[in-house]
Amino acid sequence: MESSEAYRRGEVIRAEVFGEEGVQRARRLARLDPGLANYIMECVWGGILSRPGLDRKTRELITLASVTSLGQLPEVEQHVNGALNVGATKGEVIECIVQMAVYAGRPACLNAMHAAEKVFRERGLLDGD
Amino acid sequence: MESSEAYRRGEVIRAEVFGEEGVQRARRLARLDPGLANYIMECVWGGILSRPGLDRKTRELITLASVTSLGQLPEVEQHVNGALNVGATKGEVIECIVQMAVYAGRPACLNAMHAAEKVFRERGLLDGD
Amino acid sequence: MESSEAYRRGEVIRAEVFGEEGVQRARRLARLDPGLANYIMECVWGGILSRPGLDRKTRELITLASVTSLGQLPEVEQHVNGALNVGATKGEVIECIVQMAVYAGRPACLNAMHAAEKVFRERGLLDGD
Amino acid sequence: MESSEAYRRGEVIRAEVFGEEGVQRARRLARLDPGLANYIMECVWGGILSRPGLDRKTRELITLASVTSLGQLPEVEQHVNGALNVGATKGEVIECIVQMAVYAGRPACLNAMHAAEKVFRERGLLDGD
Amino acid sequence: MESSEAYRRGEVIRAEVFGEEGVQRARRLARLDPGLANYIMECVWGGILSRPGLDRKTRELITLASVTSLGQLPEVEQHVNGALNVGATKGEVIECIVQMAVYAGRPACLNAMHAAEKVFRERGLLDGD
Amino acid sequence: MESSEAYRRGEVIRAEVFGEEGVQRARRLARLDPGLANYIMECVWGGILSRPGLDRKTRELITLASVTSLGQLPEVEQHVNGALNVGATKGEVIECIVQMAVYAGRPACLNAMHAAEKVFRERGLLDGD
Repeated sequence: MESSEAYRRGEVIRAEVFGEEGVQRARRLARLDPGLANYIMECVWGGILSRPGLDRKTRELITLASVTSLGQLPEVEQHVNGALNVGATKGEVIECIVQMAVYAGRPACLNAMHAAEKVFRERGLLDGD
Repeated sequence: MESSEAYRRGEVIRAEVFGEEGVQRARRLARLDPGLANYIMECVWGGILSRPGLDRKTRELITLASVTSLGQLPEVEQHVNGALNVGATKGEVIECIVQMAVYAGRPACLNAMHAAEKVFRERGLLDGD
Repeated sequence: MESSEAYRRGEVIRAEVFGEEGVQRARRLARLDPGLANYIMECVWGGILSRPGLDRKTRELITLASVTSLGQLPEVEQHVNGALNVGATKGEVIECIVQMAVYAGRPACLNAMHAAEKVFRERGLLDGD
Repeated sequence: MESSEAYRRGEVIRAEVFGEEGVQRARRLARLDPGLANYIMECVWGGILSRPGLDRKTRELITLASVTSLGQLPEVEQHVNGALNVGATKGEVIECIVQMAVYAGRPACLNAMHAAEKVFRERGLLDGD
Repeated sequence: MESSEAYRRGEVIRAEVFGEEGVQRARRLARLDPGLANYIMECVWGGILSRPGLDRKTRELITLASVTSLGQLPEVEQHVNGALNVGATKGEVIECIVQMAVYAGRPACLNAMHAAEKVFRERGLLDGD
Repeated sequence: MESSEAYRRGEVIRAEVFGEEGVQRARRLARLDPGLANYIMECVWGGILSRPGLDRKTRELITLASVTSLGQLPEVEQHVNGALNVGATKGEVIECIVQMAVYAGRPACLNAMHAAEKVFRERGLLDGD
């Protein structure tokens, strides 16, 4: 099944967004449940997330808005990295998370800001650290 | 208090996004609680939502992602209108909501799609209706 | 089972909070599932909600904060009525809901405000209607 | 794309769960976004939901637990019907929803109970109506 | 109060589901708030969760679906253990969590999968570790 | 902008609730995004949270109910401290969290109880530790 066109398209897009770290995460998941790993590559990344109509950066920003609103913190870290990997600036990531204070509440915003701060630090994007 | 610069800036941006319908909603809220209406105009629209760093259309799309994920359906309708008012296409609105099937689940996506369909119909954007 | 002390205590407190309307709701639920209706009367109202340590009004306000945050709108209406029935003022109810804009986001707050407005109107608490 | 084996498998399972009403819903969605309708049939019903390892009835009950917990009420109605269609009894549906009072809270449970009551009535499963 | 029939019934069922670890958790809670510990044993385990109409394994699976959907990770771990303790297989636990990708979104599913993986490892259920 | 009357009012109230620890948190946030830190001080603390109509203790208790219901655990810790700082007793904090078992579910309640227990221990409010 891994040889479908959608699967290969998903692999390319996911690598662009998550880089080598994402490949490791996919391998770990595939050991636990190959079918779920396959679904995520073929149906999610090779399906929904590869549809034309929104550019890669906007897709990562709306994902970041969603996982911030839902309080899914490990995903916030991954998609802060993802957004930066596909061309969003640190400032745009911050704007996206700050705006969630309005719609999802201040706690959801601040928890995501702390997750983003960790990523910024790892990538050397914080001044004076 | 209504005469602050932030308040006036908020009024301009909110009118751009929500149009006349939004003005009516703000008046109704102001009758119930003027302080809350003022906060929303001055701190939300004139504050967070008027920060530079993200364009108006991207801001509406990330808001749409958030309220779709949170299942806030009246807000979905308002921000589908808002996104269309500031230049998003029907196709971009659909992409944003479809992508939420991945992150917030299929029910959150489909409920928002039905709300969006209602707005598309009101604006004459559905074929063959 | 309905004759337990906790059940009778629950009936008294629940009647104080919800009045006759609440009695009707309990009867309707008992027709569908007597055990659930019994649990709610005996364990919830006669148990947790009848513990000393917080006065009735504060209990209704924290419940209102919870159901507003969770977007449980039918419950918002019921507990706006409940809070007013046990001595909260219209102003206190509004403060409680407005504060949720900070913690649960503006959409959760505004949806609850519209539910509260409906209750205020039914009780003749809105000026100029 | 609709001719894939997974698509056809999804159609069969979904028809078993939702019946003719579900076919109408799928057609309406396909008019709005054929790709999303296709994803749901091929990846969701023909993919995840057609995996062996859990029987159809258990799958519908855990779905009902999830949408009750998430407060997704239109889905509650659909999956009460779905659970009954694949062999769950009215009593099992009620047990599933009642149990959610523990994990998702009493409001989530009661809202779902009212949605289930509506379905029971439509199917003639309520005594004395 | 601990000597009620419902309390003793709850103790038996809870011990079956959670084992010795659950007894320790209950004692710790009872030190902080005996009334809450009592409520959970008597009303939850001895009440709602001891109703006939669903077998123990199905009850644990719908609980797992609920806490996965709600993102309650410590509970996910406890109920993965609980489900395994009352006869669910590792495969059935995985199916239950995978299905939540559809209804609660991929992040909720993956976070729960990582929690389950930890339990599988502790119980020696992972190959090649 | 920091010199506005609302900003100064916010600083005073926030210091009363959170103490020195809160000042450190605000400084850290201001380094990451001064505008967000300013918004929180001026619009949230100096705005919504400084409105008359509810006393400080009741405001902290409804906040605690909200963040417990939303599963925002770092906020639970902060507002358990906040509630205690403005005059709530340990018993009142526990009542507030226990009541959430009814409205937001047992997992949300227990997670918050564990966060509160940690704060009680830090403040020397647990017997026999």
